[in-house]
Formats: sequence, C-alpha cells, structure tokens
Amino acid sequence: MKGQRTRASILQRAVDLASVEGLEGLTIGRLAEELAMSKSGLFAHFGSKEELQLAAIESAGQRFIDTVMRPAIEAPRGYPRLVAICNSWLDYVRRRVFPGGCFFAAASFEFDGRPGVVRDAVKKQMDDWFGALERAIRMAKDEGHLEADVDPAQLAFELNALFFGANFAYNLRHDEEAFARARRAIERRLESVRSGATPLGQPAWTTARRVDFVD
Amino acid sequence: MKGQRTRASILQRAVDLASVEGLEGLTIGRLAEELAMSKSGLFAHFGSKEELQLAAIESAGQRFIDTVMRPAIEAPRGYPRLVAICNSWLDYVRRRVFPGGCFFAAASFEFDGRPGVVRDAVKKQMDDWFGALERAIRMAKDEGHLEADVDPAQLAFELNALFFGANFAYNLRHDEEAFARARRAIERRLESVRSGATPLGQPAWTTARRVDFVD
Repeated sequence: MKGQRTRASILQRAVDLASVEGLEGLTIGRLAEELAMSKSGLFAHFGSKEELQLAAIESAGQRFIDTVMRPAIEAPRGYPRLVAICNSWLDYVRRRVFPGGCFFAAASFEFDGRPGVVRDAVKKQMDDWFGALERAIRMAKDEGHLEADVDPAQLAFELNALFFGANFAYNLRHDEEAFARARRAIERRLESVRSGATPLGQPAWTTARRVDFVD
Repeated sequence: MKGQRTRASILQRAVDLASVEGLEGLTIGRLAEELAMSKSGLFAHFGSKEELQLAAIESAGQRFIDTVMRPAIEAPRGYPRLVAICNSWLDYVRRRVFPGGCFFAAASFEFDGRPGVVRDAVKKQMDDWFGALERAIRMAKDEGHLEADVDPAQLAFELNALFFGANFAYNLRHDEEAFARARRAIERRLESVRSGATPLGQPAWTTARRVDFVD
C-alpha cells in the first residue's frame, strides 16, 4: 500500500514535469533530479524511461477524467451535460490542472510524427476522449436537445479544436481573452444546432451555466 | 555564398528533423548524426544548440510564408484571399511541407510553458501569423465582403483553432476526414459572416475554389 502511494505521488510529479518540459524529456535521470531521489530508487518503480512515460500518460488520463469528466456528468443528460463538458475543459486549462497546459494537447503534438508505444498510448487516450465527447453529443441528440442531422464526429472535431485553440492562445500567447473567445465560438456553434426542446424551457447555455459555469 | 547555401541546406534538414522529434531534441549532436557531419563542422555554422534552434525557427517561418502566404496573396483582395489562406493552410499540412506536421503548432505546444528566447521566438512567429490572418480578415471587411461587426481577433482565433485541429486529427489520429471536417467548419463559419456583396456575384467560397481550392 505504501509502495503504491509512493508510486502515485511520484507519478503526479512526473506528469507535472512532463506537461512543462515534454514527455520526451521525462527521463529517469531528470525526474530523479526533480524529486531529489536516487535514480536506483526510481528504477525500482519504473524499469525504463518508456515504462515511466506510459505510466505518466495513464496517470494524466486519470487526472483528466477526475477533473473534466467527473464533475460534468453531474449535469443533467443531454445539452446541459454537453455544455458542462465544454465549460469543464476550459476551466481545466484555466486552473492549470497540469502546470504546462493540457498534457494531452502537448503530448499529441509532440508524438504525432513518432511511431512507437508512447505515441500509441497518447492516441488511445485521445481516441477515448473523442469517444466520450461524441457519446455526449449523441446523448443530447437522443434527448431531443440537438437537431437530428448533427454529425457527432464533426461537432466533436470542432469543439476539440476550440479547446486546443484556447489552450494555445492562453499558454503561448498569454491571450487573456482566450477563454472568452473559445466560449463565444462554442456557444454560437452549439446554439446553431440546438433544437426547440430545451430543458427547463430556458436557453440551454444559460441553464448549463447554473450547473457548471466558468467565469 | 557557398557557406550561406550550405547553412541554408543544413537548416532545411534541421527544421524537418525538429518537426518530427521536437525542437528541444534538436541538438548539435543529433543533427550531426542525422547529416553524417562532424559536430565541429556544425559548430562552425551554429555556435550553440540555442542558436541552432533560433535559426531553425527563422527558417521554418520562411518556409511557412513561402508555402502558405505567398500563393494565397495571388487571390483577389478580400474574401477570396481569406479563403485562399485557409485552403493554403490545410494544403500545407496535407502535403507534409514539414514531415512531422505543422512545425509551429508543435513548437507552440512544446514551448508554451517554458520561458526563454526559444519560446519568445516561437511566440513572435505566431503573433506575426495572427497579425497576417487578422489583416486578411480586416481587408475582407474593408472590401465589404464581410459583415461590418466581424471581430478579426475572434475570427482569427477560430480559424487557427480549426487549422490546428485538422493538423492534430490528421497526424495523431490518422483521421482521413480531418481536412473535410475542417473545411466544412471553416466554410460554415465564413459563410455566416459573408455580406451580400460577394465578388463576381457568385458564392464566394465557390469563387475562391477557382483561385486556390484544395480537394
């Protein structure tokens, strides 16, 4: 048990470090320096750099689910939950859940051209994320909250692009308007496909604000 | 002259390598290995890793301008030119102008959390790119092709997000629909702010296709 807690707390630091310096820079040596631990101590937990990278991706995935998805699914099914996921994503970057910005956006752009098990693990996480986002969109359609001709893959593509765009504008350009811009674009896009049957007979974005609005 | 040509051709390879393996991985040693040159030969051209990184960013910026912006400005001023820039950007990723995907998207996500001159140089390139994109939008407004209340910074934010989203979906997820999805979203967004005064009295997106359409 203690060993598992130690491993988990090492991984938290590994993920934070990788979010700033990149996943490729996450070596046993660099992490040992960061934690003021011996390399041999770290090797007892992770047999290789690759094993450490894979464990960090797994741990970052859990943090993402806990921070972004878990609070959002408390919103009512359908449109409010979809809006809650969007708010939750923007909030997650604004609150610097990973100190260097979204771990997965960075890892995606870092490994997209490099075949191997690390890239496969990053891709798997992103496929899971798109799966979750598309499910939320389909559920909103099933509830009658979105127009019947909405293409979940298309809408998920656009929403994710706006999330990454906000992450980029905020972290690289220090654009204070990044989240307002993303929210404006998301709101316009979602309102354009919202059906008349809005929960509670109110504008759905407003409804969702009461659930989980980020300001 | 010969020295300058050699330097330029070394930089082409350096940029290609960095687009795949990351800008942080672009060391004199790694590049020497890639080019089968001596490290001391490379040090004659670039005195340090940082100098090499900065020169690579400069060279990548020139390649971006030559590939994306130069062909697009041949399109007529206003809406057609704005559409040409969008097509040109998507085409640039599809044609793998940088083998690892957009050099600047990758460099942005790699360095956004790391202060220093390399990050400043990446940010400067992205600020210039947003400046060019916003100018193209303002020009389309001035020509009367876009509604007067269009906010150039907002629209540039959204277009760039869709470009990065396409780059991500294509390179990490191998989504064959990446460009079609991005184009659909861009087309819908631009058509939503197009004024009645379209050049040539035709749907502007169609007009632009004849100029520079990517299919």
